[in-house]
Amino acid sequence: MTPTPVFAGIDVGGTTTQVVLVDERLRMLAHSTTHTPALEGGRAILDAASALIDGLLSAGDVTLAGIGVGSAGVVDTAAGRVAVVSDSFSGWAGFEARDYLEARYAVDSLIANDVNAFLAGEMIAGAGAGRDNALGITLGTGVGGALWLGGRLFAGANGAAGEIGHAPGFGDLPCTCGERGHLETLASGRSIRGLYERATGRLNSAAQIAALADAGDGEAQRIFREAGEGLARAILVATALLDVDTVVIGGGVSNAWHLLHPAISAALAAEPPVRGSAPVVVRGELGDSAVAQGAAALAYAARAAA
Amino acid sequence: MTPTPVFAGIDVGGTTTQVVLVDERLRMLAHSTTHTPALEGGRAILDAASALIDGLLSAGDVTLAGIGVGSAGVVDTAAGRVAVVSDSFSGWAGFEARDYLEARYAVDSLIANDVNAFLAGEMIAGAGAGRDNALGITLGTGVGGALWLGGRLFAGANGAAGEIGHAPGFGDLPCTCGERGHLETLASGRSIRGLYERATGRLNSAAQIAALADAGDGEAQRIFREAGEGLARAILVATALLDVDTVVIGGGVSNAWHLLHPAISAALAAEPPVRGSAPVVVRGELGDSAVAQGAAALAYAARAAA
Repeated sequence: MTPTPVFAGIDVGGTTTQVVLVDERLRMLAHSTTHTPALEGGRAILDAASALIDGLLSAGDVTLAGIGVGSAGVVDTAAGRVAVVSDSFSGWAGFEARDYLEARYAVDSLIANDVNAFLAGEMIAGAGAGRDNALGITLGTGVGGALWLGGRLFAGANGAAGEIGHAPGFGDLPCTCGERGHLETLASGRSIRGLYERATGRLNSAAQIAALADAGDGEAQRIFREAGEGLARAILVATALLDVDTVVIGGGVSNAWHLLHPAISAALAAEPPVRGSAPVVVRGELGDSAVAQGAAALAYAARAAA
Repeated sequence: MTPTPVFAGIDVGGTTTQVVLVDERLRMLAHSTTHTPALEGGRAILDAASALIDGLLSAGDVTLAGIGVGSAGVVDTAAGRVAVVSDSFSGWAGFEARDYLEARYAVDSLIANDVNAFLAGEMIAGAGAGRDNALGITLGTGVGGALWLGGRLFAGANGAAGEIGHAPGFGDLPCTCGERGHLETLASGRSIRGLYERATGRLNSAAQIAALADAGDGEAQRIFREAGEGLARAILVATALLDVDTVVIGGGVSNAWHLLHPAISAALAAEPPVRGSAPVVVRGELGDSAVAQGAAALAYAARAAA
C-alpha cells in the first residue's frame, strides 16, 4: 500500500512544544509534546520539535507532505521566520525556521503566528468551518487575536494584525505592555488571577477562580462577567470595523465558557450592531492542539494552493 | 483623432449629486453638481445624474468607458444596488442602479458605498497612492469609515465594514444611533455643533467653531482637541486590530486639519502601538469631489482587472 501523506504541525510555545500529524482530511493522527528549549536558540528549538516529528513518523505507514509551525511573537511568514518575540525566547527571532525545516525534511514548510495558526485551524477544520470572516481570540496568559477575512488569514502591513488584546477602550487598568485600559487587563488568565487576588487577597489559578464562581463566589463571578463584557466590547469593535460574522474564542481561560458566554451574549444583546448583524460567537473546538493542528492545516492549504 | 476614453464617477448624497469625468490616468477632466431628488426614487436619482453625465460628455471629444457610483448607505456591490439607506432617501435602496446605468449607457458600471469610494479614490489617485493598507475616515454630518486591505477595498461579510463611527469605547455621550460612547459623538460635524452649543449656548457650524478656536475660544479648542483624541483612539484600535500603516481622513470637518492633526499626533505619541509601528495619518487630497473621483477610479480599476 502507498504510505498515507501527512502534514506535521508544530506549536512552539514558551514552555511546551507540541507536534501533531494530520492526514489530507485534516484528521489528527498522532500528537506528542516536549519541553521547549526556548533559551537555547532556533536550532535547538526545531531539533526538539523534529525529534517529535521523527518519532511520530516512525510509528506509522506515512509519508511527510509538509510542515507548518505556529509560534508566539510577530512572525514574518513571507520570510519564513519569527520577527519579534518576548524574552522568554533567545535566538528564536531571526532564526531561518522555514529554511531549516525544508533542508531537514525536503518538504514545503511555513511558519505563522500561533494565534493566526489557531484561527486558521478552527476556520479550516474546527468551529468556524464553512465561514469566511472571523475574529479569533485566545485567552491564555495574555489575550491574543487574529483575523480571517475573505477566506484567509489577514496578517496586516507588518504581520501584526489581530492584536485586539492591546487595543484601547477597555477601562483604565494598567496593562503588562505599560499602557492602560486594554482588553488583556480584563480577560487574560494573568489578569483574572490578579483581579481576584486584589479583591480577596487569595491567589488562585483562573481555573480555580472559575470553580469558585461556580460555587457561588460573588467576586469570582463578577470577574468572569467583566471579562465577558470586555470580550463583547472587543467583538462589537471588530464587528463595526470589519463586519465579521464569526468570532472564535480559544485558550485555557475559554474552558470557563459557561461563565464567559452568557456575559458576552448579554452584553452583545444590549448593544446590537448599528449595521450588519451580531456575529456568531463560538468556542474553539480543537482544544489544546488547536495551534499545532492549525499550523498543519496551513501547510495543507499551502500545498493545495500551489 | 480618437476620442479620449473617460470614466464617469457619480456621488449620490442626500442633498447633492456630483458627477466627474476622469481620464485613464485618473485626472479629473470635468465636474458638475445638481440637487439629488432623493425622495423621488432610484430612476429619478440616476436620471438627474445622467443629465449631468450627458452634459459633460457632450462638451468634449470623449467616449465613455465605464461608470462608478458612490452612494450613502450599505451597498451590495455584488448585486449592484443599495441595500439599506437612511430615510433621507425613498425608493433608492433596492433600485437596480448598476443595471439601469448599464442599460442606459452600454458600459460596465458599479456602485459602492460612498466612504468606500472616497477611500478608493484616495488610495488609487490621492493621499494614499502607493500604499496597501489603510483606514479611511470621513468627518461629515456623521463619521464614516472604510478599509483598504492588501491593495483593495474590504467590504466585510455584509458590505458594512469600516463603521468606525459606531464602535464603542469613546466615552459615554448619547449617539444618533441610540447607543452611547461612539466616535460619532465626538468627531462629527453634528456632534461638534452640539457640543459647542451645550458648552456655550451658541449655535455655530463646525467651520465657524474652528474659526472661533483659531481666534482663541477655549471651548472651541477643547472640542476639536477631544475630537482629535477620539480619532487617535479609533486609529489605535484599527492599528492594533488590522495593522494598517495609513489613515486617510476626509470630509468637511477635516478642513480644520490644523486643529485636528496636532491633537491626533499628540495622542498617538502618548500611546505607541504595542506591535507594528504608528501609522501615517494624512488628510485626503481629493476634497469635495473625492467620492465621485473614487467611484470613477473604481470603475477604471474594474475595467483594468477585467
